[in-house]
Amino acid sequence: MEFSEVPTPKLGLRDVLIKVRIASICGTDVHIYDWTRWAQHRFTPPRIIGHEFVGDVTRVGEEVTQIKVGDRVSAESHLTCGHCYQCSNGNSEVCRNFKLLGVDHDGAFAEYLVLPEHVLWKNDSNIPDEWATIQEPFGNAVDTVLAEDVAAKTVLILGAGPIGLFATGIARACGASLVMVSDPNNYRLAISKQMGAHIAVNPRRQDVVQLAFDATQNNGVDVVLEFSGNNQALNQGLKVITPGGRISILGIYERRVNIDLNKDVIFKKIRIYGITGRKVFSTWYKTSRFLSSGLVDPGPVITHHFPLKDYEKGMKLMKDGKCGKVILNV
Amino acid sequence: MEFSEVPTPKLGLRDVLIKVRIASICGTDVHIYDWTRWAQHRFTPPRIIGHEFVGDVTRVGEEVTQIKVGDRVSAESHLTCGHCYQCSNGNSEVCRNFKLLGVDHDGAFAEYLVLPEHVLWKNDSNIPDEWATIQEPFGNAVDTVLAEDVAAKTVLILGAGPIGLFATGIARACGASLVMVSDPNNYRLAISKQMGAHIAVNPRRQDVVQLAFDATQNNGVDVVLEFSGNNQALNQGLKVITPGGRISILGIYERRVNIDLNKDVIFKKIRIYGITGRKVFSTWYKTSRFLSSGLVDPGPVITHHFPLKDYEKGMKLMKDGKCGKVILNV
Amino acid sequence: MEFSEVPTPKLGLRDVLIKVRIASICGTDVHIYDWTRWAQHRFTPPRIIGHEFVGDVTRVGEEVTQIKVGDRVSAESHLTCGHCYQCSNGNSEVCRNFKLLGVDHDGAFAEYLVLPEHVLWKNDSNIPDEWATIQEPFGNAVDTVLAEDVAAKTVLILGAGPIGLFATGIARACGASLVMVSDPNNYRLAISKQMGAHIAVNPRRQDVVQLAFDATQNNGVDVVLEFSGNNQALNQGLKVITPGGRISILGIYERRVNIDLNKDVIFKKIRIYGITGRKVFSTWYKTSRFLSSGLVDPGPVITHHFPLKDYEKGMKLMKDGKCGKVILNV
Amino acid sequence: MEFSEVPTPKLGLRDVLIKVRIASICGTDVHIYDWTRWAQHRFTPPRIIGHEFVGDVTRVGEEVTQIKVGDRVSAESHLTCGHCYQCSNGNSEVCRNFKLLGVDHDGAFAEYLVLPEHVLWKNDSNIPDEWATIQEPFGNAVDTVLAEDVAAKTVLILGAGPIGLFATGIARACGASLVMVSDPNNYRLAISKQMGAHIAVNPRRQDVVQLAFDATQNNGVDVVLEFSGNNQALNQGLKVITPGGRISILGIYERRVNIDLNKDVIFKKIRIYGITGRKVFSTWYKTSRFLSSGLVDPGPVITHHFPLKDYEKGMKLMKDGKCGKVILNV
Repeated sequence: MEFSEVPTPKLGLRDVLIKVRIASICGTDVHIYDWTRWAQHRFTPPRIIGHEFVGDVTRVGEEVTQIKVGDRVSAESHLTCGHCYQCSNGNSEVCRNFKLLGVDHDGAFAEYLVLPEHVLWKNDSNIPDEWATIQEPFGNAVDTVLAEDVAAKTVLILGAGPIGLFATGIARACGASLVMVSDPNNYRLAISKQMGAHIAVNPRRQDVVQLAFDATQNNGVDVVLEFSGNNQALNQGLKVITPGGRISILGIYERRVNIDLNKDVIFKKIRIYGITGRKVFSTWYKTSRFLSSGLVDPGPVITHHFPLKDYEKGMKLMKDGKCGKVILNV
Repeated sequence: MEFSEVPTPKLGLRDVLIKVRIASICGTDVHIYDWTRWAQHRFTPPRIIGHEFVGDVTRVGEEVTQIKVGDRVSAESHLTCGHCYQCSNGNSEVCRNFKLLGVDHDGAFAEYLVLPEHVLWKNDSNIPDEWATIQEPFGNAVDTVLAEDVAAKTVLILGAGPIGLFATGIARACGASLVMVSDPNNYRLAISKQMGAHIAVNPRRQDVVQLAFDATQNNGVDVVLEFSGNNQALNQGLKVITPGGRISILGIYERRVNIDLNKDVIFKKIRIYGITGRKVFSTWYKTSRFLSSGLVDPGPVITHHFPLKDYEKGMKLMKDGKCGKVILNV
Repeated sequence: MEFSEVPTPKLGLRDVLIKVRIASICGTDVHIYDWTRWAQHRFTPPRIIGHEFVGDVTRVGEEVTQIKVGDRVSAESHLTCGHCYQCSNGNSEVCRNFKLLGVDHDGAFAEYLVLPEHVLWKNDSNIPDEWATIQEPFGNAVDTVLAEDVAAKTVLILGAGPIGLFATGIARACGASLVMVSDPNNYRLAISKQMGAHIAVNPRRQDVVQLAFDATQNNGVDVVLEFSGNNQALNQGLKVITPGGRISILGIYERRVNIDLNKDVIFKKIRIYGITGRKVFSTWYKTSRFLSSGLVDPGPVITHHFPLKDYEKGMKLMKDGKCGKVILNV
Repeated sequence: MEFSEVPTPKLGLRDVLIKVRIASICGTDVHIYDWTRWAQHRFTPPRIIGHEFVGDVTRVGEEVTQIKVGDRVSAESHLTCGHCYQCSNGNSEVCRNFKLLGVDHDGAFAEYLVLPEHVLWKNDSNIPDEWATIQEPFGNAVDTVLAEDVAAKTVLILGAGPIGLFATGIARACGASLVMVSDPNNYRLAISKQMGAHIAVNPRRQDVVQLAFDATQNNGVDVVLEFSGNNQALNQGLKVITPGGRISILGIYERRVNIDLNKDVIFKKIRIYGITGRKVFSTWYKTSRFLSSGLVDPGPVITHHFPLKDYEKGMKLMKDGKCGKVILNV
């Protein structure tokens, strides 16, 4: 990975040129930086990475109709095809032909980027830049929390990375009566308390399962939100869901998982929701309202700012887990 | 209506005797007090009225298994049959044979009342008496608000009687991004602000429809909650729902209503939910959690306290609309 | 209305030129032909009418990517904007800026028509032309029936015009355990029996409400599907829904409706669904599968064929109610 | 296991004495007969087994109100507590204190059995005895199929034991446009064709995954219903679900399962439903209507009849998989 001078990208008829204000680092970016096995398999250099950003429109293609020069925009990072079985059935978040911004299409860790009009989101003027850039991962949290409603329900959140932390704030904002967060990283657990967690648990030192039963009069929790990508955490989650409850899973696992399907899912009549991407644009509307109305304050999650050229500092913090969200000023 | 000495009621095998601590006045009680046409038609004296209460169990029938002497209880006011088509299909709130506490069965404006075990709710110890007694109407508000989720949605509440006021707090607690309340009574509008309304509108002086469009970038509101029982308010509500939105209706109307079904419902693909009763006991669980966890503070709605013998003072306040909820100390 | 020679329409970058094979007449077309008050208010001549059709693609604009010359297509009649609040939230069937084919855009009662690529549907090769042309109204029936599932439920269908008749077949195909159809037109009632109605009722001679209770052990029906646009039928429907049931309403009313909201909706906790348009394209997928798999045979509903130039014969039959669907061969 | 003379059981106040007409064998009964590890762990002799039956009421306890002598009844096999968190929230099928008929309570492979009134189901007079007895497992199939609707959807059924076979008929009756069944047992595959399977696949000889993609234009299936309890079948099912689709799982696994959660669930945004028991009594209503209305003919699944004393013949057939459902005449 290197920081270099490249030509300003060209514009198609329905494309928009955006001057990036700020961007933010996602775990995916760290995988590419680290050149993990996933990255080696999935990513073909040269490519500008980065898909979380906010910027200003400086030019629009001839057939662009809704976006104007001067609009302050962010973008849905899934560049969907619009015509596969999924796109045609209201499930564009699982488009079968999507291209990922910053992986299959030049991304936002740059002065300029070009995107097709149909993935752009005009930002609400009440939302400051450093909140606007995190709408993409915040949307993941929205869909994970709200796969079913959480009003007056008890919730266990597994994994307190940025998305788990956003989810903590969202669950509180949507009326969860108990929010317990589990993560082995005390730095992040502390942020979870700022985001509204009633109980923050370090599973290396405490018995999450027991604590969850204790906090729910032995009923178990109504809702589990799994962001850790850890097989053991997943099994803890399944163990403490009350019969008839649900789990939403966004975390990505290193390998296949192993679960007690009979006892933890079937005999408890659990519902499991795999979560990926965001609904375009209903998730964005929700995200925007959570942020612009003051329902969720993501401030505590945004822990570091660097100039773009110092991106390596951010990558290192991310690898060490000593941060929430890292902002890059372009 | 009179205040008199009666014998302590007798106990069946599955019945429970309750010594009332406090009760609260519902609009239904006022109708009976006023001997309105509805009351003349529906109510057969002599009968003790009142169905909102909290009390202590002092005796239990021989076949009672879950309730013990000393339990602090409230009750579902619909004494359901348990075997009709509705009860057998998970819709006991519309049981076809239900008896109404305080109308068909002696009620709670008394020192003692007797109820079958299956309608009793053991109160959470965190909930004070004057909150416990209002759980029954609070449950109406819960079901009206949560017919679908309100997270990150814009909401218009029509009618700021006690149930509309509870709904205001519930909608806020569940993540509504905008809550607008409309009521001609300024006393109650002021309480709605305390309950969290972003905007409080007096429809006699302001144009509710215009204000609702103004507050939603001309989209209209996602959700309307109709508690007023007023045909004009209903039509205002239908007018401002955004296409694809929903309305929940709990208000009772003096006569048949008149609506523009084509324009306001069909061409907008609106969903209308008639709401009555409460889910037994899932609504009670939610209610209890909203109150015990601090998600909703119903305090501002509870405006007056009288000794039971002064119930007429409460009835008069209710008729004049110069109160929220009136508590009767037994 | 006249039949005349016009130039072949021009093609935009994303447009497609279609040579019409056959078209079919909708009630909307009859309104325009009749120059009713609605038409005078809504329709601006000159304009080619007609929105139900099947045809062959003969030319495509330069930016068209999914449709090819030779494709046999039909079209969603709502030309949606793609960017309003509704379109952005998965509710394009209530797009706030849609143009209606054959009303706001030249239609299908012609040798050729031009449409933007994004509203076209490639027909399944198993579906014959005269079935392909009726997919648009069939989709209305699909969305009305399937607003909630009908499996093992009792259903009353009010109005046996073509859409009500399609709904009869769909309700049977989807596992309704009882389908009762009510219409004053005996010709259409006879077709409803061919479409699978268990009971066909003429409300001018029989007591629909009583018959519905008789056929459901006095429970009332689980589901009402209202296609008649008749206020009296609507009230009969509301009367016979079992508490906790639902009604879907597609019929258009001559004037505002008058209903007993307390008794028929609120105290019964009914759900009302206004229905319009079709989900693009999930409704089209369902429609296509119902027709291509043999689940629904719409044959009995398709009663007449005329050459396009004899469209007036079809219009007259429609006005007299002496037909199901009328096909025009181009 | 032995066949012996025992005293007629005694009746509590709310109990009912039933003279069994016929019963049927479930896989659970075979486990007990076989004294498998599960049985050794779960079952305490002496105990009369059997939970699928139809019989006549011959006596009722003093407090029984809805059941009368002479009623022809079957029973929900989960004797639920009525007051746990699950029972109180409309999820009695996962009651935390339920007793299982024929395991925790003397069962139906007997001349008489006693059951509490609240688990009894009065049979529809249109349903013959040998269909009435299989309503309990049929209800499992109903809940598995209808966890979401299947209208106009493509369905893969894994496992063609009696419940999978019932599910085949139910999926067809509810409008599935394609039903593919996979089972290694050709005897049962042949029955699946009689129950309406469009495609019957033997996974030992054919590539289920490839065939499912071939039959769905490479989209994969919308719905998978897993009855096999086989880890490999489960993974095949997850592989062929179209992104955005769902799987319902009723099959019981010998050990923990191993799945590719990232690829097969999360990135495809799949919904997984664990299924157990039946909704009391909404599932029973649906079951009764499927059978009484002729929507599903379970006849082909009912393959053998024996007198009760020859129950061992049935057990052996079950173990060999050379049967559908085995009926025992009492």
